[in-house]
Amino acid sequence: MSMADKPTLYHWEPNANSGKPMLALEEKGVAYHSVYLDMLEFDQHKPEYLKINPMGTIPAMVHEGHLMNESTAIMEYIEARFDGPKLRQDDPAKRWKIRWWMKYCDQYFAPATSMVAWDMFTGPAVRRKDPEELKARIEAIPLKERRIAWSKAIYGLFTEEELAESRRRVKQASALFERNLEQNEWVAGDAFTLADINAFNLVYILPHMADTMRLPSVSVERTPMTMRWLKRMYQRPSIRRAWAHSRGGIDIDLEAEANRQFD
Amino acid sequence: MSMADKPTLYHWEPNANSGKPMLALEEKGVAYHSVYLDMLEFDQHKPEYLKINPMGTIPAMVHEGHLMNESTAIMEYIEARFDGPKLRQDDPAKRWKIRWWMKYCDQYFAPATSMVAWDMFTGPAVRRKDPEELKARIEAIPLKERRIAWSKAIYGLFTEEELAESRRRVKQASALFERNLEQNEWVAGDAFTLADINAFNLVYILPHMADTMRLPSVSVERTPMTMRWLKRMYQRPSIRRAWAHSRGGIDIDLEAEANRQFD
Repeated sequence: MSMADKPTLYHWEPNANSGKPMLALEEKGVAYHSVYLDMLEFDQHKPEYLKINPMGTIPAMVHEGHLMNESTAIMEYIEARFDGPKLRQDDPAKRWKIRWWMKYCDQYFAPATSMVAWDMFTGPAVRRKDPEELKARIEAIPLKERRIAWSKAIYGLFTEEELAESRRRVKQASALFERNLEQNEWVAGDAFTLADINAFNLVYILPHMADTMRLPSVSVERTPMTMRWLKRMYQRPSIRRAWAHSRGGIDIDLEAEANRQFD
Repeated sequence: MSMADKPTLYHWEPNANSGKPMLALEEKGVAYHSVYLDMLEFDQHKPEYLKINPMGTIPAMVHEGHLMNESTAIMEYIEARFDGPKLRQDDPAKRWKIRWWMKYCDQYFAPATSMVAWDMFTGPAVRRKDPEELKARIEAIPLKERRIAWSKAIYGLFTEEELAESRRRVKQASALFERNLEQNEWVAGDAFTLADINAFNLVYILPHMADTMRLPSVSVERTPMTMRWLKRMYQRPSIRRAWAHSRGGIDIDLEAEANRQFD
């Protein structure tokens, strides 16, 4: 593969949505250019990035002249386009299950988790900036939905009702996730797939949200199968390589997680 | 294909989400058992259906012992599992575009359209029932999110702010859809794909919502390319065959649409 054929991945910290295509690239063994955008500095809304991705969203990937956004759709592209270990089975019914879980994570599990995390972490972190500068940066966000979401997070405007509903969803989804892993070694069945990559980028944070974010949902006591799955995930070299791109946003001891002992 | 191999499709009126897998089956030329569930009678929350699909959602499809729900994921299954005309290209970048549009429709365009339609049509239609019976039926809905959504629609509880935001999204999405069709003959480029099926089931209603639902978004004047695309869609025999399953929920003159004249 020549340099020109390497995809360029525009990402923030290698977790959540940014972690999804990055882990898929790492699992396939695809070399890529990494461009780190600092979401807390609103890099994704700056003119130079809007020229590349007018939506002002991260992650995005450019390959062979194609701009692609939407992290799950990018993962499907990576799987179809590059050689390397298969990240999905050929059987259409198994693919349906992969896609069911990815949709459940993308549309239900992740947004609920994300609202709690934004309210407790992202909002307060950004709020330390100069108020006038913050205002200008919010006004530069191209999509109105994102302007509203950012305003709510920054100024702490999520209502108690919204946050309570998100907490309820996270707990419900964590329980469903656990029940699934009681039946299956991996999220979509007997093989590691894109569904594991998708879920990992969301679920890994939950054991750490129990105390700091008052969200007890995933723990050794409550969800032992999920904790064992997380350990298998942490043992994959792809996570190590992806997390090497972190600039401090991921405060987790990867070695400890990969070597966790269960009774 | 033996009778036993025929998929069974559980659907309501052959539009919106129910129309997506049905049109995909019709386009592929796949024979299927059709089971009509009346959503306005809450058939999808009755015990006999919950035994088949515990989520209590429609559509769902059963094939070779697999229960599948989530209409877009079912369409991907249909495309991969059955012979017949291709409903997507092989090129991964083109598939990315199909999936981008399907996600945009599923997560943004359709929910906004649906809220306006529920508020103006579904809610009032259901509200004519006996109040006690209605209450009992709402309580029988298995997913809390669906209980909330149905309650809001039935009792007219969408706020003016929610409805205004949905109208804004429909107008914005309709404009983006039109700009895309100025560049491309079909939604995802130069070929008819799953993205056209997905979008049709949502967009076809918009020209008819301008007056009755105070939602001017798609019309000959405003979005001529979308109207031409709709005409090409209405000319497909698959639409005719799918709409033959309607029991009165689709009040559109298909012949007139398929023969619409443009200046």
